[in-house]
Amino acid sequence: MSDRDTRHKASMEKLKARVEEKVASANEQRGLIIVNTGNGKGKTTAAWGTVTRALGYGYKVGVVQFIKGLWECGERNRLEEDANLEVAIMATGFTWDTQNRQADTDACQAVWKEAERMLADPETYLVVLDEITYMLKFGYLEIESVKQALENRPQEQTVIITGRNAHRELVAMADTVTEMQEVRHAFNNGLQARRGIDF
Amino acid sequence: MSDRDTRHKASMEKLKARVEEKVASANEQRGLIIVNTGNGKGKTTAAWGTVTRALGYGYKVGVVQFIKGLWECGERNRLEEDANLEVAIMATGFTWDTQNRQADTDACQAVWKEAERMLADPETYLVVLDEITYMLKFGYLEIESVKQALENRPQEQTVIITGRNAHRELVAMADTVTEMQEVRHAFNNGLQARRGIDF
Repeated sequence: MSDRDTRHKASMEKLKARVEEKVASANEQRGLIIVNTGNGKGKTTAAWGTVTRALGYGYKVGVVQFIKGLWECGERNRLEEDANLEVAIMATGFTWDTQNRQADTDACQAVWKEAERMLADPETYLVVLDEITYMLKFGYLEIESVKQALENRPQEQTVIITGRNAHRELVAMADTVTEMQEVRHAFNNGLQARRGIDF
Repeated sequence: MSDRDTRHKASMEKLKARVEEKVASANEQRGLIIVNTGNGKGKTTAAWGTVTRALGYGYKVGVVQFIKGLWECGERNRLEEDANLEVAIMATGFTWDTQNRQADTDACQAVWKEAERMLADPETYLVVLDEITYMLKFGYLEIESVKQALENRPQEQTVIITGRNAHRELVAMADTVTEMQEVRHAFNNGLQARRGIDF
């Protein structure tokens, strides 16, 4: 065996030991609270990736879309025939189009009722609260209601929360928090959002 | 209208103007190079979310998995019946299990041939090079080959590159770069990876 191959083998043996140690020390089993936040791309897209994954195993999934309700959405097109997927969409456009706080609050509260139902359902393995952070920021929804629904959810249920500027109390409750940071964004260099990629 | 409602409306009008200005200034149309890097979760999952999205519009998609070849994978289960999706998987286990540089290099080069074919195919709207950054890091693949294939790809084709420590030349070529940063990870607090969520 060459020197390079020998060094490679030794370094991989170390890596294997580290991986195995980590796997062995993780022994608690329950649903998670996952927060995808930050100013970069991938917060919602990663949530949809997890939805696809969970559906792939036959789990029941609920998605609540608090903002992108009126956008066309390739993921929904692709997955909506799946009987295990329920999608609830806030019945209003972008808040910067409606410009009406009361109407937005009403629409938010109505779809939050759907979210509460999903968060109380032991059959639902995964709930996505997509862009819910903005509802808290705009005051359409109270943090206390969200905390309570999360705390009382079934033990096996995982919840994914997406959106910028996640409320500090949500971050504090979460098991996994990822900050998607924008290093560079095509849109800021004059490139159009692409169908099937960006939306 | 109450003061609070009036302030809300004014602030939303400003936001709307900013959104519209950005949309108007983005007028270049072509496929993108997107890099999902960083030590946090969501790099691969966001790529699978985009795959689901593109398939939802009926686009042809190619995925090359350079590392997780032997893991069970809910996304693949869910999507593999789609005639528009082709998945090529590196025919080896985790590099820390095989511990054999030559065998890994051969396996990498073989699946890279599949990637090159996809990257040259004008019908393929999206190509995912999942975990390819490690192939470059371990020296199984040359950066020059990857650069050349990316540069010569069809103009309408988008490529998503995932993995930690993306090569600086890939970052330099990319249109959109997102750094997924780990703020907190359940696994490090003793929580087991969950079927349908983490894998």
